[in-house]
Amino acid sequence: MRVDGRQSNETRPITIVRNYIKHAEGSVLISVGDTKVICTATVEDKVPPFLRNSGTGWITAEYGMLPRSTGTRNQRESSRGKVGGRTMEIQRLIGRSLRAVVDLKALGEKTLWLDCDVIQADGGTRTASITGAFVALADALNEQVKKGSLQQLPITDFLAAVSVGIVGDQPVLDLNYEEDSKAKVDMNIVMTGAGRFVELQGTGEEATFSGDELNQMLSLGKVGTEKWIALQKEVLGAEIANRIAQSAMQNA
Amino acid sequence: MRVDGRQSNETRPITIVRNYIKHAEGSVLISVGDTKVICTATVEDKVPPFLRNSGTGWITAEYGMLPRSTGTRNQRESSRGKVGGRTMEIQRLIGRSLRAVVDLKALGEKTLWLDCDVIQADGGTRTASITGAFVALADALNEQVKKGSLQQLPITDFLAAVSVGIVGDQPVLDLNYEEDSKAKVDMNIVMTGAGRFVELQGTGEEATFSGDELNQMLSLGKVGTEKWIALQKEVLGAEIANRIAQSAMQNA
Amino acid sequence: MRVDGRQSNETRPITIVRNYIKHAEGSVLISVGDTKVICTATVEDKVPPFLRNSGTGWITAEYGMLPRSTGTRNQRESSRGKVGGRTMEIQRLIGRSLRAVVDLKALGEKTLWLDCDVIQADGGTRTASITGAFVALADALNEQVKKGSLQQLPITDFLAAVSVGIVGDQPVLDLNYEEDSKAKVDMNIVMTGAGRFVELQGTGEEATFSGDELNQMLSLGKVGTEKWIALQKEVLGAEIANRIAQSAMQNA
Amino acid sequence: MRVDGRQSNETRPITIVRNYIKHAEGSVLISVGDTKVICTATVEDKVPPFLRNSGTGWITAEYGMLPRSTGTRNQRESSRGKVGGRTMEIQRLIGRSLRAVVDLKALGEKTLWLDCDVIQADGGTRTASITGAFVALADALNEQVKKGSLQQLPITDFLAAVSVGIVGDQPVLDLNYEEDSKAKVDMNIVMTGAGRFVELQGTGEEATFSGDELNQMLSLGKVGTEKWIALQKEVLGAEIANRIAQSAMQNA
Amino acid sequence: MRVDGRQSNETRPITIVRNYIKHAEGSVLISVGDTKVICTATVEDKVPPFLRNSGTGWITAEYGMLPRSTGTRNQRESSRGKVGGRTMEIQRLIGRSLRAVVDLKALGEKTLWLDCDVIQADGGTRTASITGAFVALADALNEQVKKGSLQQLPITDFLAAVSVGIVGDQPVLDLNYEEDSKAKVDMNIVMTGAGRFVELQGTGEEATFSGDELNQMLSLGKVGTEKWIALQKEVLGAEIANRIAQSAMQNA
Amino acid sequence: MRVDGRQSNETRPITIVRNYIKHAEGSVLISVGDTKVICTATVEDKVPPFLRNSGTGWITAEYGMLPRSTGTRNQRESSRGKVGGRTMEIQRLIGRSLRAVVDLKALGEKTLWLDCDVIQADGGTRTASITGAFVALADALNEQVKKGSLQQLPITDFLAAVSVGIVGDQPVLDLNYEEDSKAKVDMNIVMTGAGRFVELQGTGEEATFSGDELNQMLSLGKVGTEKWIALQKEVLGAEIANRIAQSAMQNA
Repeated sequence: MRVDGRQSNETRPITIVRNYIKHAEGSVLISVGDTKVICTATVEDKVPPFLRNSGTGWITAEYGMLPRSTGTRNQRESSRGKVGGRTMEIQRLIGRSLRAVVDLKALGEKTLWLDCDVIQADGGTRTASITGAFVALADALNEQVKKGSLQQLPITDFLAAVSVGIVGDQPVLDLNYEEDSKAKVDMNIVMTGAGRFVELQGTGEEATFSGDELNQMLSLGKVGTEKWIALQKEVLGAEIANRIAQSAMQNA
Repeated sequence: MRVDGRQSNETRPITIVRNYIKHAEGSVLISVGDTKVICTATVEDKVPPFLRNSGTGWITAEYGMLPRSTGTRNQRESSRGKVGGRTMEIQRLIGRSLRAVVDLKALGEKTLWLDCDVIQADGGTRTASITGAFVALADALNEQVKKGSLQQLPITDFLAAVSVGIVGDQPVLDLNYEEDSKAKVDMNIVMTGAGRFVELQGTGEEATFSGDELNQMLSLGKVGTEKWIALQKEVLGAEIANRIAQSAMQNA
Repeated sequence: MRVDGRQSNETRPITIVRNYIKHAEGSVLISVGDTKVICTATVEDKVPPFLRNSGTGWITAEYGMLPRSTGTRNQRESSRGKVGGRTMEIQRLIGRSLRAVVDLKALGEKTLWLDCDVIQADGGTRTASITGAFVALADALNEQVKKGSLQQLPITDFLAAVSVGIVGDQPVLDLNYEEDSKAKVDMNIVMTGAGRFVELQGTGEEATFSGDELNQMLSLGKVGTEKWIALQKEVLGAEIANRIAQSAMQNA
Repeated sequence: MRVDGRQSNETRPITIVRNYIKHAEGSVLISVGDTKVICTATVEDKVPPFLRNSGTGWITAEYGMLPRSTGTRNQRESSRGKVGGRTMEIQRLIGRSLRAVVDLKALGEKTLWLDCDVIQADGGTRTASITGAFVALADALNEQVKKGSLQQLPITDFLAAVSVGIVGDQPVLDLNYEEDSKAKVDMNIVMTGAGRFVELQGTGEEATFSGDELNQMLSLGKVGTEKWIALQKEVLGAEIANRIAQSAMQNA
Repeated sequence: MRVDGRQSNETRPITIVRNYIKHAEGSVLISVGDTKVICTATVEDKVPPFLRNSGTGWITAEYGMLPRSTGTRNQRESSRGKVGGRTMEIQRLIGRSLRAVVDLKALGEKTLWLDCDVIQADGGTRTASITGAFVALADALNEQVKKGSLQQLPITDFLAAVSVGIVGDQPVLDLNYEEDSKAKVDMNIVMTGAGRFVELQGTGEEATFSGDELNQMLSLGKVGTEKWIALQKEVLGAEIANRIAQSAMQNA
Repeated sequence: MRVDGRQSNETRPITIVRNYIKHAEGSVLISVGDTKVICTATVEDKVPPFLRNSGTGWITAEYGMLPRSTGTRNQRESSRGKVGGRTMEIQRLIGRSLRAVVDLKALGEKTLWLDCDVIQADGGTRTASITGAFVALADALNEQVKKGSLQQLPITDFLAAVSVGIVGDQPVLDLNYEEDSKAKVDMNIVMTGAGRFVELQGTGEEATFSGDELNQMLSLGKVGTEKWIALQKEVLGAEIANRIAQSAMQNA
């Protein structure tokens, strides 16, 4: 039994509200338990210098936390004058993950900016960001298809992320902040709709883990990402979901 | 008739949701038309160096905008590595305004951090920030009274802010973004429940204004702040509102 | 009676020395009491990106204080590696104020840089900066007319700024540092030769002010700016003063 | 057959030179193929603020690349004025990895700084850094034991890291730069002498990977880290190696 | 004959105005030809960390140029967010030079800040800064003697600096900006009243120089510094000058 | 007799290893006693903005120290977010020195980057950097000649640098760290193969020096640079050495 009464293979309640910010091309408010993240997708008609005249697009992400998203106030990175190591690690992870399910050639010379801003944190902010950003991205790209800027949706599969870990001696799924603080091992798993890995980041926190423990965590990760991809399909609606499913089949 | 059909002396619809972020000592989501700001209040048991051992408290504010709170994405100040001039001006204004209605001596050696983060912008973000931050601050200080850290609420009056301006030749109240872009004069007015001025910042945008125009704008400002203070009272509830009212009478 | 023996509606002695720095297109040393500011105007034949190919010019200002312009040494902003909030607020104010009396269309695609560097501070450095910068700007633009880079002086009116405030219960004009430190209310007023407002920034320093007090301060501000504009006319000489006066009449 | 003629499960030649820098408490030059990294360990008799008076020590790492360690010159992070995201990610990884095999309680209130500076890069700089830093750390801590600052060596096991990946469709071990540039999947594995995982970071580079591919990469990683730990034992010599082995048995 | 009609061994006209800034403990405006520098000396009752509890004082200098001290506007170092290499080199030189003629032990645990701000530049700003800063420092230290904070003036000799160089094939003294731009060799010489060297910095600007040329430049440097030290004595007055002279004799 | 048994006019053992870093166009490891510096030369086919379309090339240098090149760990300049004054002074010196022996016109619009990174420091790092960088530069430029990018070697003479100083009352050559810490005077001398000065930087460390002492130091400097230039010739080999010698004769 876990601190909040969940089974070890149970995720927290999750909701995804689409079109949350009126100005953005795609935007969601994703809540996973008490973790709440605003994810927006912005389409820009140019690419970074290393891709100019390559015909290829780019996806980049930025991540932030409001000062009181956390139990004690954390200083703004803008006041400190620099982006911290944890933030950089997370935003690089989000960008890389989403690039794995978008056909950048088909996107053409556009950049997608994914902004994930945590307004309330209770563990799993990076995995919530990836899961929410996928929906914002799908909306933004679908909009491009509708207005004729893209011929078809360049998304090759669904994508969700979940955290797993070992708390006490128990592998558990979707850790909240209290569990995360006590976990010996912490692993973030990013998976596609087809059940393939995109990212796997497992860390012993002043601890180590065995091959068996790894396998148990991977199984839990599969359970979690499958569940959240099911919600993404529901939220996006049959039309968009089917287009992505077709695209995934062609890519399989 | 204004672009959104309002009368010149009419404000946009406003809502204030209390306790919006679970971790903060006080927090609101304030919406003024399509402008949405999360305001949190944090109580810290120390003061900046210049007040140490003075027995006096301090109130400071920080302001931010999410990258897609605006029509085109604006770069994060954390990535740029510095806080811009506009942000500094606004956060200094918010802090100064709220210090005017708190008895810092009675607060004792505590610092109140007010964080105002715009999640969606449509004009008037600084005045919405002040109006919302007042409620977050009242909640945070009331909590201190309840738990015995303060003997009584050190708030000396209500406080709200509103923008006024001259669009075309017409003085108008509570400008939205479209009006703001076209305004010749832009003025922010911060007033107390007793109708006294706390701040007055009027700016001709490559234009000037006469004494008459100033007076018309001041009248509109009074209408707007009175209306919003009425909402603050309603939202905070009779108990807190009465305490502030009593305090205001003692200070009159 | 004030600390330095002045009447409440009396300004400090003021002098403006033109052509103070040999390299600058316009330059003055302005002294208001013990406050001394070097103001230079630089003409640059390009505009910031947002104005390129618009046919319109720009005016921007920067403000600085020498480390020992003040009673205790203040650290250089270059060593701190960033420009502080107060500096940003002031330089934005100076730039905005001067843009209000220059016809930027007539200026064409040029940028005017106004640098205001305080070499000795005793209150009112921002208002002295504006008042001095106007003369430096007039000289720099007049030079452009003389050398044929501009067809006529694109200045639409005179401009001066003065501080007013409430010290004790007394509204007073042109506060020195000692008065400023004790003032309950501090207001900066920027006015044109025609007596129109350009900027109005009134701040209760942990205090508030009534409509009556506001009116008294506005009257003092009118006295002060009129007096200083009279000096600007005298210092610039009949020829330039007349050109500006004509321009002001055409714009009235 | 790989570009340099290696088998898929073969590592590049590796050498570790101890006591490479005379000033450091521990220091090595590690060469893995053409990748060369100087790793130094510094012992400092204080801990970061969050550990003061906890009786517990800390290990932190910093990573850098000389400008011409790479094929084209890369700009110094000191000139750019900030540490980049990749550098932060790597130095956080190195620090975390080494903390997993040191008993920080037994270390007491000391900080170990591990500096890993790449003087020539040809792929696998982060795994070479971890593998080399372990030896520098062992030397620095052993020195503390010899001079009586520590009662016994607080190292709980050996530690090495290796990269694996999928190039073409082939899982391969210890990728050089040319292979790394073409790899679809890139994984860094940090393992202990007992064969337990410390870190696992697998990334599809605009690609994904299956559970089978993961297992093949994990097997290669085991081969590589075992081989390098064997070298660490040889290089450190029987005395130190035995102490760590004993410690590892006690911790098993 | 030089561009401004001087002989090769002739300096430009020089004036030193004492007590130029009312707030500073010592301050001068030094003019050397068209080069004008405000030098202030600030006395602070503490020392940098490396001298705490050593009983020894410190002297440090900062140097700046107003944006329009030069022919084309130079960007403020505060806006650029960092102090440039040339500025650092100069301020390190000024500090080192003055430390050579002050008995830091006798100064006790105080820091002297010397701020040299160029308001108009025409070559030789660093040597004018040193020559002027010496007078500001003498005034500030003399003030400390008068008010009893120091028992005697801890200055061991006079100090002045001058530039020499080779223009065409001609060694010349005290180069103005035009000469400096064309010089093949540029040398700054800092000397004491006793004719001893404190600093010697000679630089071939994409050129080299012989031992003979060096000797000719050193002779010119002696002429220049002697002349300026004579002025320092005159400006400081007999009383202070005699105290320094006595001190110099004791130190000889 | 000196601390390490050397005569006053004796340098430490010196070695120069060419082609030390495989990626760089030129690279050496230079060891002078226990001081070890990696110098690389990078050729870039563009020039800084101020030289564009001038037909002229540029040489610039950067200098760094690894954190544990010194007895106590020094913080990375990248973590501090800025390049310190000492670093800037040194890298400006290295760049200037090498520009004096390269015909920048003949180089054409290319930039040579010289990176000097100290991996172990024991005094004289800047002079070792210059002496080593000359060899790296010669190799890089010779390579350009070989591949036809340059018609002939644009080097006008050999170049080496050495430190001299006064320790106790004794002028000495090539100070190690221990001597340097105790020296009253410290001078860096950069000379060409023809015995001409390129740079001369002498500094009294809270001390002064006479003309006689200067002459003794200059003589020692000549001994040292001659010796090191002899080594440069030997290391570069007859072919390159002869080309430079011819070039030097033409330029004499």
